[in-house]
Amino acid sequence: MTIEKLNLAEKLALFQDHWHPRIAGELNGQQVKLVKVRGEFVWHAHADEDELFLILRGEMRMELRGRDPIVLRPGEFLIVPRGVEHRPVAGVETEILLFEPASTHHTGGVDSPLTREVLEKV
Amino acid sequence: MTIEKLNLAEKLALFQDHWHPRIAGELNGQQVKLVKVRGEFVWHAHADEDELFLILRGEMRMELRGRDPIVLRPGEFLIVPRGVEHRPVAGVETEILLFEPASTHHTGGVDSPLTREVLEKV
Repeated sequence: MTIEKLNLAEKLALFQDHWHPRIAGELNGQQVKLVKVRGEFVWHAHADEDELFLILRGEMRMELRGRDPIVLRPGEFLIVPRGVEHRPVAGVETEILLFEPASTHHTGGVDSPLTREVLEKV
Repeated sequence: MTIEKLNLAEKLALFQDHWHPRIAGELNGQQVKLVKVRGEFVWHAHADEDELFLILRGEMRMELRGRDPIVLRPGEFLIVPRGVEHRPVAGVETEILLFEPASTHHTGGVDSPLTREVLEKV
């Protein structure tokens, strides 16, 4: 078994496309993912999975159905509880670390041009 | 249900003691913890839990029984798989974000003066 550290900046430099998460680590049935975003994602929810967004660079607004949006900056994280419909929006390119169950589908089952069925490791 | 973001620096400013993790978030049976460390922790392992260490500030050396140690700097994370005996050591004060199951006991059942039986939320 190999045990290696992972450098976030080095991994983020390996890809440029937006809304395409990569798997950076796995533990306890959960995954750490890295994603770059810009623009508007699709409204969606995850019925059985809570989702953590930790901002590494940039700025993101999390829109939450029926609630005030929450603006997130580097060094801030938000946990979106299961069942809560949400939509990430970023005016500038934003780098995010996600922590969520390995079963989590990023568009929550919503079929969108942004949907990625299979995620690669970075 | 309240949905709020959390600012890591603001929360880290609220406590100063070392080797005393605080709970910063909970999702999917996992917890996000924040801890400040300096010096040597105790050798321990977690039989059923993988543990993620993300360095926010400072520098930490993770000693791993029977393996080379791994030096971690800000923006780097390490997943210590279940069953692997490990010991964090930090020459300077180091701030760490932990992701691990809510059931994880920080000294892995080893009774030490550093052991905290109950962790508070920050």
